[in-house]
Amino acid sequence: MSLDRPQRGVFVPALTPFTPDLAVDEARFVEHCKWLLAEGANGLAVFGTTSEANSLSHDERRHLLDRVIGSGIAPRALMPGTGCCAIPDTVALTRHAVERGVLGVLLLPPFYYKNVSDDGIYASVAEVVHRVGDARLRIYLYHIPPMASVGFSLPLIERLLRDFPDTIVGLKDSSGDWKNTEALLNAFPGMEIFPGSETFLLAGLRSGAVGCISATANVNAAGIAELLRCWREPGADAKQAELTAIRAAMQKFPVIAAAKAMLAAASGDADWKVVRPPLQPLSAEAAAELARTLESLDFAVAPTRVHA
Amino acid sequence: MSLDRPQRGVFVPALTPFTPDLAVDEARFVEHCKWLLAEGANGLAVFGTTSEANSLSHDERRHLLDRVIGSGIAPRALMPGTGCCAIPDTVALTRHAVERGVLGVLLLPPFYYKNVSDDGIYASVAEVVHRVGDARLRIYLYHIPPMASVGFSLPLIERLLRDFPDTIVGLKDSSGDWKNTEALLNAFPGMEIFPGSETFLLAGLRSGAVGCISATANVNAAGIAELLRCWREPGADAKQAELTAIRAAMQKFPVIAAAKAMLAAASGDADWKVVRPPLQPLSAEAAAELARTLESLDFAVAPTRVHA
Repeated sequence: MSLDRPQRGVFVPALTPFTPDLAVDEARFVEHCKWLLAEGANGLAVFGTTSEANSLSHDERRHLLDRVIGSGIAPRALMPGTGCCAIPDTVALTRHAVERGVLGVLLLPPFYYKNVSDDGIYASVAEVVHRVGDARLRIYLYHIPPMASVGFSLPLIERLLRDFPDTIVGLKDSSGDWKNTEALLNAFPGMEIFPGSETFLLAGLRSGAVGCISATANVNAAGIAELLRCWREPGADAKQAELTAIRAAMQKFPVIAAAKAMLAAASGDADWKVVRPPLQPLSAEAAAELARTLESLDFAVAPTRVHA
Repeated sequence: MSLDRPQRGVFVPALTPFTPDLAVDEARFVEHCKWLLAEGANGLAVFGTTSEANSLSHDERRHLLDRVIGSGIAPRALMPGTGCCAIPDTVALTRHAVERGVLGVLLLPPFYYKNVSDDGIYASVAEVVHRVGDARLRIYLYHIPPMASVGFSLPLIERLLRDFPDTIVGLKDSSGDWKNTEALLNAFPGMEIFPGSETFLLAGLRSGAVGCISATANVNAAGIAELLRCWREPGADAKQAELTAIRAAMQKFPVIAAAKAMLAAASGDADWKVVRPPLQPLSAEAAAELARTLESLDFAVAPTRVHA
């Protein structure tokens, strides 16, 4: 159990809504972010995988971050994804975010070249830190090998923490492998570690995790926030089981499309279904199957709680 | 044997030289491009994987293409890579290249999201074609699953050729799998197909390939061009065996770093070794081992032929 890790809670990789012609719907994005915070989210990991960030241009990302902050959402509640394939792009997005006063950035490793060495990934992160050159920079490493292929090994993390102790502050572990999360929690007791799924939230909190960053928090932020409040109480395991069942139901489908289908159904706004290629929306059949499963679990995104 | 495919020859995914502080060395890039053409390259697939294109910002790519064309290299000899993760970026780079009058663009599929459907990749390509909206657009699909993970299946290619017959004109097959190249050549007799390695050049030409696009052509363009001239003659198999041996020697190492080490040695300019992270330069030991192997094969990049 770590004493020096703050409880950050649930950070939501906010879904990015699009119009039918695939433009970013900025106004709806801001509303979605505000709704998530009202539901109990502690922060927003905007521009994550779930946000389809890699399907957005860098200009779109910068503009959207400014729009969110301009809407009154506190920069300290934001952990935007800024890791790109090319160092100049990562530096530009990171510098912009730091200048806006965000809590930190969620940093994907450069993900085009495969089988790169830890030395190469280290050099990439070091170059970004040096070029941004701002003492306010806080980096959360984004470990998501199922999508990025490239990831952060324990020896690499150890080296980064040693050389950039004031900058590298945390990690999101989307390996989907609890053994890896547990190894990280044991190895790096001073680091803010977020499992990438609420399935591992209770086990994580009991081992020193600071919360979770989860795609499905886009539809169940309130449920996850409740577990964060009651995790030391007797009902915690039952609450975890509920969250796990809902997550498992959604994970049978592509999660981004599934979460968007659920918001479309709950809000009555079919535009919520739109994803940018190469992703595809959930089929009507799959959406109906998901809805039936969620109903059997007595779970619904309450329509009155979703902005119109 | 196809009659309606032109012989395009060897297109080189030109290496991008950097200064020691990782800036693009534009002047040296232009010199390298001109040297390759003088050596017998038929064209330049600038901004491919070997060019570290995904480690360049989009502005750097646009600027560099303008610089190359401004230097007097014919746009019709150019097949720049323009495929990014995000549709707006791919559209911007593609439109820029088309407006410059290039032969065509080499299009990576969006490569961040994994396990995407053929429908999703199709939608992505279709969206790019529609948004660019220029009858001059010619697309060469870039199939490189070992790096991009996402690729172009035969049914997907068939659908793209059917729906965009004037736009989708060719494919670079960097699967490294001759069986796949052969299947493509058999399935799409009207398509300009380039194996991604000179190892498959002779077999490819005999089955209707139009040439090859190969990383190692950065150091052996002359040798590959020679096989392209003599491939119907008696010595062709022996020439192919030579090319294959040189390629195999280089492939024991990370090929981009290996080719840069060879140019550094041949030119006496150590800056040629510089790669952008996450790639790493070849170690001195590895470079020496490679040099010994190439010497035993009686192969050298003639120093007098490399610009200083």
